[in-house]
Amino acid sequence: MAAAVDNGVNVGALLEAREALRKAPEAAKFTWRATCKWKKGTHSRTHIDGFHGLGQEHKHRTEFTFEADHPEIFASEDCGATPVELVLAGLASCLTAGVASVAQNRGIQLRSVEAKLEGSMDLQGILGIDSDVRNGYDDIKVTFEIDADASQKDIEALVAQSQKRSAVYDIVTNPTNVSVEVRKTNR
Amino acid sequence: MAAAVDNGVNVGALLEAREALRKAPEAAKFTWRATCKWKKGTHSRTHIDGFHGLGQEHKHRTEFTFEADHPEIFASEDCGATPVELVLAGLASCLTAGVASVAQNRGIQLRSVEAKLEGSMDLQGILGIDSDVRNGYDDIKVTFEIDADASQKDIEALVAQSQKRSAVYDIVTNPTNVSVEVRKTNR
Repeated sequence: MAAAVDNGVNVGALLEAREALRKAPEAAKFTWRATCKWKKGTHSRTHIDGFHGLGQEHKHRTEFTFEADHPEIFASEDCGATPVELVLAGLASCLTAGVASVAQNRGIQLRSVEAKLEGSMDLQGILGIDSDVRNGYDDIKVTFEIDADASQKDIEALVAQSQKRSAVYDIVTNPTNVSVEVRKTNR
Repeated sequence: MAAAVDNGVNVGALLEAREALRKAPEAAKFTWRATCKWKKGTHSRTHIDGFHGLGQEHKHRTEFTFEADHPEIFASEDCGATPVELVLAGLASCLTAGVASVAQNRGIQLRSVEAKLEGSMDLQGILGIDSDVRNGYDDIKVTFEIDADASQKDIEALVAQSQKRSAVYDIVTNPTNVSVEVRKTNR
């Protein structure tokens, strides 16, 4: 029965990759990259092009660019999503890709998956009004609506497994070290 | 001299907003939202449209959509950036917008700002090979190259202040609670 399930995920290839990397753990070390160029005001454009992994450089099929800005209510021009909305997009897409992969592995046919995310933030943090208020989200709620050939319980287990293996869920819920270097240039 | 500096950030409006929110802290409570729809395999599309803040609903000038996918080396179709690259874009754009805002407030004219980000990740985590390896980034390096009318020291101070007030820097470097709810639907 599982053979008839097709969520578009090549689980066989992923399991083979896991076996290959188990034997060659150095190849599992990846570096993901982004280059962000300031445009004007709070508007920037981030380019995503290549990455390193499996011991070599790779190019994406095409370059991906992301505009970011602040909204008009903060006297900006709203030329792109806010940076904090980009984080929600990263979290949503990571959990969703995980749901599809786990469903394929468990022989569950998906018909539709939609994740709605809400991140609450008290702007007294970033505006420096109250130093007890953090800058980032105080809470993120994710609501999945999933239509699939499975029980509510099995669908919940799918999502739980996706959380357990999600890179972005880990980045958001646990601390990640960020180091920053600054160079003055003349262009 | 500061009056002649123009980085395209309306600092006056931001300082007024801070004073207004200091008197009405309820209005500082924001909710940012994203809706992610599964396409096929690991490919999804996230829509960003409206948000809540200053006590009311707001729409962005236009809807923003973000494609996400996994690359071809994982047997996916590379229809978009990876979710972890989206997080880099969020971090890069947040710090960059902060640099522009702080520079404006300090009367420093920027000529160019570029941030290169590198996030290292050991895929033994997400592939479930080694449970001691985390799923997310083990380290993110940010390198700013900034051309501005200021000394290296003042430019470093700009970036440090941007980090101090950055929402995404806080989200990545500190733990954020994420709750997940799952509903089975029939579509």
